[in-house]
Amino acid sequence: MNIYDISKLAGVSTATVSRVINGADNVKPSTRDKVLNVIEKNGYTPNAFARGLGLNTMNSVGIMCVDSSDLYIAKAVYCIEGELRENGYHTILTCTGFDRKGKEESLSMLLAQHVDCIIFAGSAFIDDNNDKNNKYIYDAADIVPVMILNACLDHPNIHCVLCDDSIATRDAALFLIDNGRRDILYLYNSRTYSAVRKVAGYRKAFELRRMSCDERYLQFFEGSSRDINGVCNFVTSLRRSGLNFDAILTLDDLLAIGAVKYALRNSISIPDELSIMGYNNSIFTVCCEPEISSVDNRLESMCKNLVSICLDVLSGREAPKKSMFSGMLVHRKTTLL
Amino acid sequence: MNIYDISKLAGVSTATVSRVINGADNVKPSTRDKVLNVIEKNGYTPNAFARGLGLNTMNSVGIMCVDSSDLYIAKAVYCIEGELRENGYHTILTCTGFDRKGKEESLSMLLAQHVDCIIFAGSAFIDDNNDKNNKYIYDAADIVPVMILNACLDHPNIHCVLCDDSIATRDAALFLIDNGRRDILYLYNSRTYSAVRKVAGYRKAFELRRMSCDERYLQFFEGSSRDINGVCNFVTSLRRSGLNFDAILTLDDLLAIGAVKYALRNSISIPDELSIMGYNNSIFTVCCEPEISSVDNRLESMCKNLVSICLDVLSGREAPKKSMFSGMLVHRKTTLL
Repeated sequence: MNIYDISKLAGVSTATVSRVINGADNVKPSTRDKVLNVIEKNGYTPNAFARGLGLNTMNSVGIMCVDSSDLYIAKAVYCIEGELRENGYHTILTCTGFDRKGKEESLSMLLAQHVDCIIFAGSAFIDDNNDKNNKYIYDAADIVPVMILNACLDHPNIHCVLCDDSIATRDAALFLIDNGRRDILYLYNSRTYSAVRKVAGYRKAFELRRMSCDERYLQFFEGSSRDINGVCNFVTSLRRSGLNFDAILTLDDLLAIGAVKYALRNSISIPDELSIMGYNNSIFTVCCEPEISSVDNRLESMCKNLVSICLDVLSGREAPKKSMFSGMLVHRKTTLL
Repeated sequence: MNIYDISKLAGVSTATVSRVINGADNVKPSTRDKVLNVIEKNGYTPNAFARGLGLNTMNSVGIMCVDSSDLYIAKAVYCIEGELRENGYHTILTCTGFDRKGKEESLSMLLAQHVDCIIFAGSAFIDDNNDKNNKYIYDAADIVPVMILNACLDHPNIHCVLCDDSIATRDAALFLIDNGRRDILYLYNSRTYSAVRKVAGYRKAFELRRMSCDERYLQFFEGSSRDINGVCNFVTSLRRSGLNFDAILTLDDLLAIGAVKYALRNSISIPDELSIMGYNNSIFTVCCEPEISSVDNRLESMCKNLVSICLDVLSGREAPKKSMFSGMLVHRKTTLL
């Protein structure tokens, strides 16, 4: 005897049976009596979840991410979710896609679920060039506290946790310059808040060393980092077009894998002839040989800090508006120490 | 002028302001008047989300996953979410962790949010040995339709979409045997529904070829697939202990990366001296050189099929209880054709 049998015998929908079991008040008295009669006659005990359906005092936090299959975002969600769960919060995650409409709809949905806080996981939600496009975030912050990972907006009720991607990229470029590399290709494929800062950091390194930054060495790959062979072919075509480089610095680790492939396939010795440095210090850095040097942008620490700030805000305690972490170079086999 | 200013001026909480704006009926008339007065005097227009807070007719589907940072699961969630969104459904994803308690709590939370359907993404939710441990899934199926990806339970209101991992693994082992490999190491690190079937498939291959299956070649790695160097060291220690193998078949692609590292570091030629075959045909297969042969278990097709069945069920149409896909061997550079 389950909820379907009851609904059949009482001649009502399972939703109605569920409402009766949970004592909802939007059921006609006659319908309620009919359902309760059937339940009584048949000795039906609603299961644990049916009994639990009424609960409304659940603490929940909404997480917005653009693409949950991006390994960096997936790891962030995993860390944030685990920290929240340990502190008694449930997580509702939505994957919005890159379109504004999807982002706004997902946000509406989370707010309609009465989450206690919204976390924007990743800088793809922020428009750095036109602040009007950030209005949906400001609107959300009028209703619940908002946390942003990896980007920053200055607005009441918004707290940001990020790594200084500009300085970290600058330091990576400085390391390469100071170790004798002169022709450093910067390979990127995104123009998000965080990507723009990384490019600025690359330029800054040349400025600091009073060297000119040759724009031909800033190369935008029109495609996904996951298209590893596409990246490899792109780098190969750059070299064939006459661009010479003795180092490649990339926006993320997957692009660096494409760079390693380029070197392996063209018998270019790493790191003697070519240094390679990725970004994120993800599992991809140890998937290939030689293993890839990378910038650790402290994702786990940032996520823990973000949740801790979130809990402070929800408890009415003062919390920092902007928390900035520093990246760290992690040397493996693709850079000479 | 935002919701905070209004709440300050009216001397009530922001939650009360929100309730007034949304026409909720649990507000005292005197309080309502006070808030509306302040709003009128200050010309406040509630923002889009505040206006939208009342919406209750949102279609939503709950997705349960054990670990969203697992690349296979992350990809599944991404595919399912995209398909659902295109069909007008929002997704609420919860990451439960491996403990029963976390799984049951997440499920309760989703049901409390009145999702229209629950999708269990991955076989880690199913206990193959003790059906009592699946009761929480059966209980959920009493309330809403349940879809399971990658495992199968026979119960009313539960629909399953899976790849025949047993046959796919059998075929991978048969391929290796029929190409002259005799000492095929099977490397695994999980005992989920799907893992148990893969091991059975490995054994079946030997049975079909009337060869005995030497148990020493079934090796369980006590650790995460992400510990690539740990896997590499484990395989190295097996070889040093005197176990000879000319092929390695693995439970997933990351384990296969560990196997490739073992070969590269010990100057073992791939595929001449050692064939390697992974499972999942994920991006990891193309992260290293040589690129890894793998079993494509049709994740994208399965996810599309699962959502299509889900939509059929929600529309009251008949839908298959169990949909079985076949894996396909994808040959790259780690197997001899």
